[in-house]
Amino acid sequence: MTVTAADVQHAAERISGRVRRTPVLRVSPTLTLKLELLQHVGSFKPRGAFNRMLSAKEQGALSGLGVVTASGGNAGLAVAYAARELGVPARIFVPESAPSTKVARLRTLDADVVQIGTEYAEAYAAAVTASEASGALFVHAYDQPEIVAGQGTLGLELLEQADPFDTVLVAVGGGGLIAGIATALGGRARVVGVEPEVAPTMARALEAGEPVDVQVGGCAADSLGARRLGSIAFDAVRAHGVRSVLVTEEAIVAARNELWTEYRLAVEHGAAVTQAALSSGAYRPEPGERVVMVVCGANTDPSTLG
Amino acid sequence: MTVTAADVQHAAERISGRVRRTPVLRVSPTLTLKLELLQHVGSFKPRGAFNRMLSAKEQGALSGLGVVTASGGNAGLAVAYAARELGVPARIFVPESAPSTKVARLRTLDADVVQIGTEYAEAYAAAVTASEASGALFVHAYDQPEIVAGQGTLGLELLEQADPFDTVLVAVGGGGLIAGIATALGGRARVVGVEPEVAPTMARALEAGEPVDVQVGGCAADSLGARRLGSIAFDAVRAHGVRSVLVTEEAIVAARNELWTEYRLAVEHGAAVTQAALSSGAYRPEPGERVVMVVCGANTDPSTLG
Repeated sequence: MTVTAADVQHAAERISGRVRRTPVLRVSPTLTLKLELLQHVGSFKPRGAFNRMLSAKEQGALSGLGVVTASGGNAGLAVAYAARELGVPARIFVPESAPSTKVARLRTLDADVVQIGTEYAEAYAAAVTASEASGALFVHAYDQPEIVAGQGTLGLELLEQADPFDTVLVAVGGGGLIAGIATALGGRARVVGVEPEVAPTMARALEAGEPVDVQVGGCAADSLGARRLGSIAFDAVRAHGVRSVLVTEEAIVAARNELWTEYRLAVEHGAAVTQAALSSGAYRPEPGERVVMVVCGANTDPSTLG
Repeated sequence: MTVTAADVQHAAERISGRVRRTPVLRVSPTLTLKLELLQHVGSFKPRGAFNRMLSAKEQGALSGLGVVTASGGNAGLAVAYAARELGVPARIFVPESAPSTKVARLRTLDADVVQIGTEYAEAYAAAVTASEASGALFVHAYDQPEIVAGQGTLGLELLEQADPFDTVLVAVGGGGLIAGIATALGGRARVVGVEPEVAPTMARALEAGEPVDVQVGGCAADSLGARRLGSIAFDAVRAHGVRSVLVTEEAIVAARNELWTEYRLAVEHGAAVTQAALSSGAYRPEPGERVVMVVCGANTDPSTLG
């Protein structure tokens, strides 16, 4: 399946007024931050969730049966939030091991949380089965065209908001965000995907020529813990020549503290990988290269900062 | 002494490139946040500090003798930062009771920190004496025309950045920020000053018809702890019809948590008073009234959130 720039444009029209147009902070002539951590429920994920649900609604496929997903993280929060806003029930499958704080947060958004199985794959399978059995709309965490197109609206905003730029640095987990941004930009800027060394789903997919299962872990696993790149994302990143950069655990932890010290941004580890790429030199811009760094999430315990 | 709109305009030209143009976040048709917590060293104070120092430089009054101030808080950080950027030494007087973390932070900015006396008034007197004896430039925390004009540049930015608005909510300590903003806006919007009930320097000054000493305390005392409104600020807030609103300690603590939950902004208590005014109903906008809420500082321990 391919997502087009037109799909992203339609997504932007569809979700307008539902998501925040998050601001940019220009910190130097060559560095701008896109502050997507200020989005509803603290990450970019509502963009895709709203686009998936509103697309389905247009086609009569969003009913009072509501939506189903599998995620104890940012995608789950986004689905719960979007469902509540649209007035439909959300049923969210998470592993039995999901932290009680995450389950509680989902419930404050009125979601029906089902804890099942010992790992994510079991919760995912249960969610798919429940969707098929009940007729509720299945919302994937990243690998659906409407999700990718929705995340891509962040790229369209950047084109409108930021001064001209050469390069965008984006964190990669399942790849929905980077695929959407690359599609939205359509070659107007270089797109660089940044991943933890210990969760290299995009790097391994590009090496293998297809998405492959990867051992993932590390400090950013709660947001960048997908085990393989989405197939839609793979097609998009290959089509648009997205580059891959890996960062160490130490660089991520240091970068997260830098974002607090330098900008007073309290971010989750997964969102600090872009800063880590610049600070550690894993990505070295050319002299004069104008870089946009996407800061995409803040679902974190702020007491772990500093 | 009076500060004029022209003074603010000159300040904006003078400090351009030295301070960040902090972004706004429009969260609804009637509410916009000015994210001044993203300023250098985590508060609006560098605006005034740069304007004071660069004004003096234009007049040949900023020399290798550097600058002197008295503040263990945001003003001290701003003076240390601006001095380092301008390549002059900064000597900062704080009480012996100043927390070691604050002293350490000032020293990381290369400031010469002098701990003297048991309370702020003694540190202040020592700073004035040191300035007179050494010839170093004295930088006040709020009550100098160049400081007020510098802080007012935030108001000019708002006029350029935000959609048309009716009202601006601003935290008040010594009054430099609100005086500058009221001067910059010059009646184009209503300006409302928000203070803790337990630190009502502006409210008492307006009642008394002049700045008066006030007992101050409470959770926001580290940033809104000035004991009396500045005389320049008093003239400005009276001239521009600034309104006064007081908020409780409970409302401030709750608002600080709301800013984290709703927007992922980790702010200091003093910067949460504007949110507190809205959430608690201490300030109730009319239907359709378009409000800008200034979020002015984030020098806080994030582990105390939530």
